[in-house]
Amino acid sequence: MGISDGNTLKQQAALAAIEQIRDGMIVGLGTGSTAALAVTALGDRVREGLRILAIPTSERTAAQARLVGIELTDFSAHPRIDLTIDGADEVLPGRLDLIKGLGGALLREKIVAAASNRLIIMADDSKLVSKIGEKAPVPVEIVKFGWCATRARIEALGADVALRKGTDGCAYVTDNGNYILDCRFSSIIDAGRLEADLARIVGVVDSGLFVGLATQAIIATPSGLQILDRR
Amino acid sequence: MGISDGNTLKQQAALAAIEQIRDGMIVGLGTGSTAALAVTALGDRVREGLRILAIPTSERTAAQARLVGIELTDFSAHPRIDLTIDGADEVLPGRLDLIKGLGGALLREKIVAAASNRLIIMADDSKLVSKIGEKAPVPVEIVKFGWCATRARIEALGADVALRKGTDGCAYVTDNGNYILDCRFSSIIDAGRLEADLARIVGVVDSGLFVGLATQAIIATPSGLQILDRR
Repeated sequence: MGISDGNTLKQQAALAAIEQIRDGMIVGLGTGSTAALAVTALGDRVREGLRILAIPTSERTAAQARLVGIELTDFSAHPRIDLTIDGADEVLPGRLDLIKGLGGALLREKIVAAASNRLIIMADDSKLVSKIGEKAPVPVEIVKFGWCATRARIEALGADVALRKGTDGCAYVTDNGNYILDCRFSSIIDAGRLEADLARIVGVVDSGLFVGLATQAIIATPSGLQILDRR
Repeated sequence: MGISDGNTLKQQAALAAIEQIRDGMIVGLGTGSTAALAVTALGDRVREGLRILAIPTSERTAAQARLVGIELTDFSAHPRIDLTIDGADEVLPGRLDLIKGLGGALLREKIVAAASNRLIIMADDSKLVSKIGEKAPVPVEIVKFGWCATRARIEALGADVALRKGTDGCAYVTDNGNYILDCRFSSIIDAGRLEADLARIVGVVDSGLFVGLATQAIIATPSGLQILDRR
């Protein structure tokens, strides 16, 4: 599958997701390549007259949304979100457990997801897995202070851990001023349990394991769209 | 009890704690009024020839330590700490569960505590409680983004929640760039369980509940020192 085919599939999923956005909704906007396609398409809908307010999950998405004419709001004005659209790095059909955060915005994405009545994931079928952690590492956002000690405690859970680097070769820093560790576990038996174990580690802010948050995944395949609801 | 009496008691506890520091140790330095007394006294010991390296839990403590001649190090050079000395806002005799963080440094204090072989708490007897949460609110450090939504989820645990303000009347910001919510629970049955429940909330970085971390508390009373070991 070439890059352009991948983009066409992502585009189809993005268009199907924004069809569910209605006048008057508070909409959460994800971060990443698929979310960016959705934001562009949502901008077109807004110019055609759709009235919504959006909460972005990154500075990058906020800038793009402003550019295409989407009005932004925040949690102090709107603590509940009707619908959030976002991408994912892994999607487990059935439970709709996810790995997210390869784009670096996992914490804000998770805060927005947790405040949303519905979370719709848009992805192409290369993101489907039969087991969480099969392809992607679990990104874990940690505070800078004492990060070596925090890494050692995550390694003690059985992970192979790498500090994420930015394009400049230095440690990548999130919008919240934290580091990200990309953690490979040989086998994740219970994603919810691992999520809780990681959250309890002192110095860990949150992980890219999204358990019980997604309500629907729209998966674009070469033969058409697959709509997966959480079971 | 006047302020000077309180300071004299704290001073006695601080002096007893630093007596346990030996040549060659990596020492964690807490934050707050009692920790500051200990840092001053430790500086005197260093000038008398004691050789240690210290990891401070706040910018404030780092500045004070440099001023009194204590050499600093960090986790990348020393991922394990031999002994940490720190104050607390509440101490439960027996299990030595603590509430910490009224001074605003709970996260770094907890990271240092979790990396320490021994954590010695110095306090006067006004900090002893028969139940955690009896006197002090539980400080919870949260990321700024979406903090209203995070507050709502903490309130759903049954807490009365206040955003901590700084001396300028604006929201207090920690050394890690986060907010602090001071959370009063009507009754805390199981501090370890509450600590885990808080840690799992998206947007929460960590709480000031310290469970299973302190190894000894040195409590100064008007009639002398009480040494409480964890049972």
